[in-house]
Amino acid sequence: MKGFVFHGPGQSSWEDVPDPGLKDPTDAIVRVDAVTICGTDLHILKGDVPEVHPGTVLGHEAVGEVVETGADVRTVRPGDRVLVSCITACGRCSYCRRAMYGQCRGGGGWILGHLIDGTQAEYVRVPHADLSVHALPGGLDSKDAVLLADIFPTAYEVGVLNARVRPGDTVAVVGAGPVGLAAIVTARLFGPEKIVAVDLAAARLEAARQLGADAVADAREAPEQLIADLTDGLGADAVIEAVGVPETFEMCTRMVRPGGHVANVGVHGAPATLHLEDLWIKNLTLTTGLVDTHSTPTLLRMAAAGRLPTADLVTHTFPLDRMEEAYEVFGRAADTGALKVVLGGEPHDTVAVRAA
Amino acid sequence: MKGFVFHGPGQSSWEDVPDPGLKDPTDAIVRVDAVTICGTDLHILKGDVPEVHPGTVLGHEAVGEVVETGADVRTVRPGDRVLVSCITACGRCSYCRRAMYGQCRGGGGWILGHLIDGTQAEYVRVPHADLSVHALPGGLDSKDAVLLADIFPTAYEVGVLNARVRPGDTVAVVGAGPVGLAAIVTARLFGPEKIVAVDLAAARLEAARQLGADAVADAREAPEQLIADLTDGLGADAVIEAVGVPETFEMCTRMVRPGGHVANVGVHGAPATLHLEDLWIKNLTLTTGLVDTHSTPTLLRMAAAGRLPTADLVTHTFPLDRMEEAYEVFGRAADTGALKVVLGGEPHDTVAVRAA
Repeated sequence: MKGFVFHGPGQSSWEDVPDPGLKDPTDAIVRVDAVTICGTDLHILKGDVPEVHPGTVLGHEAVGEVVETGADVRTVRPGDRVLVSCITACGRCSYCRRAMYGQCRGGGGWILGHLIDGTQAEYVRVPHADLSVHALPGGLDSKDAVLLADIFPTAYEVGVLNARVRPGDTVAVVGAGPVGLAAIVTARLFGPEKIVAVDLAAARLEAARQLGADAVADAREAPEQLIADLTDGLGADAVIEAVGVPETFEMCTRMVRPGGHVANVGVHGAPATLHLEDLWIKNLTLTTGLVDTHSTPTLLRMAAAGRLPTADLVTHTFPLDRMEEAYEVFGRAADTGALKVVLGGEPHDTVAVRAA
Repeated sequence: MKGFVFHGPGQSSWEDVPDPGLKDPTDAIVRVDAVTICGTDLHILKGDVPEVHPGTVLGHEAVGEVVETGADVRTVRPGDRVLVSCITACGRCSYCRRAMYGQCRGGGGWILGHLIDGTQAEYVRVPHADLSVHALPGGLDSKDAVLLADIFPTAYEVGVLNARVRPGDTVAVVGAGPVGLAAIVTARLFGPEKIVAVDLAAARLEAARQLGADAVADAREAPEQLIADLTDGLGADAVIEAVGVPETFEMCTRMVRPGGHVANVGVHGAPATLHLEDLWIKNLTLTTGLVDTHSTPTLLRMAAAGRLPTADLVTHTFPLDRMEEAYEVFGRAADTGALKVVLGGEPHDTVAVRAA
């Protein structure tokens, strides 16, 4: 089969690789219908994630059809259309028993396209299939569903739920990339009074408005002041960091009101400064997290019911075999306007560009 | 009357000051029976808290007798024995309505011995008396009760409750000074499996053992390793920072398990480094806070019932007029072994040293 293989920093290609086969009786083999590319994949390509060995097929998000299952798999069978979650879960360890699947200590967690071959290929082996793939509700398009493999549960759990967004809140979302936009969409479910999106890119701020932000702010133009003006000088109740650099994290800690929540969603490669000399007295709650995907079944039901505009985040689609071009477009998002790029799905043989 | 007056960094004295009088109809005047000295008072003396103006009477903890009340005071009357809380609360602002009295925006919060004259005097004016003093339950000694003005609610709310200590948890308490020790005492109420105390001073670690720590560790000898050994390599469920310097805060973030809680109680004067490159994926919850004192009535009831060994933290007692000597002993805690020093209370005219 074909797969997208990491060969070390700056080196990767769509190439022939061996077909995956069952290794354990809890495995499933899935024929990939649609995949997407995550910002984390770009970090891997740059060499920022050293535990990814050269030779690994990348990708941790997919929709496809089960073609084979091990003897112990109970929840899906060949022919089922499934979402392949970014998180694999043994279901038995101390973390899985608390629904903290992202921290699975039984051989799961984030392993696809990280510690084992991933989803950016024609077929993928999914370990611990019972808790790691989700049967798709009828009527849910692959392109819609694939965004529920990672960014929607990440934005919802690590952002919105951790930040404890509540009715009447002022919510600041710093970073209006795909995850930040998904945070805006899912924050709306809790009836906040105002959502303020912060980014450097005018096109992303416009997307934020379209997806439900009530106000937007250029990150270079003192967005803290806008938040203060909107909140009688207090600060936001909930602040969601969806970038992953020290500057934006520190900005978030300046935007939150005493007693508020800062939920970090960004994947960081460097330490940040925590201004405890100011913050010790502010009764803040700061959270970090890798997604657990405990919310994925709920989000799938909502998407099937038309309550989550997932596809609105898809700016570019490609057939699967144009993976390298898709990476190139996604990697130059500032120029191409790419939010999420989806490969595969329907139709397979055209390129549709929804926005730029 | 006499009071302990801050005259600028390094300058202070027990001296004649005007008697306080009612200014607002919600005020009470309290004759001070017992007071204590807080580590924060030492910071003020060093000049670390610039909003304290020279001429201010210090102190934010006291037990005494109400001698006069304004026309609008309803909950206490002259003759009542009361605890003067470190937090003053208007009871009407958006924060007080959520029981976040420490963040009061109606003229309260931490104001005594900070923004207005405090308790280290023969009399003190307490604004917003209805919510800022607490009638003492019968049978509670002044020396026991005065520790409930600040350190016990601080350790309990900002440490133990914020860290969400639960039955079966492994709890690390970094810093075994008075607040850390009070955190050990109140963490025990939640039935943890193990409490590990960390400090530099052998005497404080011994006090920690006596007050309920199951294990102790010298901060210089890789206490993270002890925590790892005790938790199958995972880390502590709950970590309480009770020092207030970057090194100990950062140590706490290395001690916590994925999905655990770090509750900062320490008062910090400098920023810390938050290693988000390691922590983003660990599903941590970090909290900060000034005490709200919403728990004070509960703690008073427990102390009166003999369920909180508050007096065990008192190492030195002095009569009120030996304030300067008490500061000197408390300020040299490493040499004197001082935990809490209490001035006044019974007996007034002897000096009892319980430990050194």
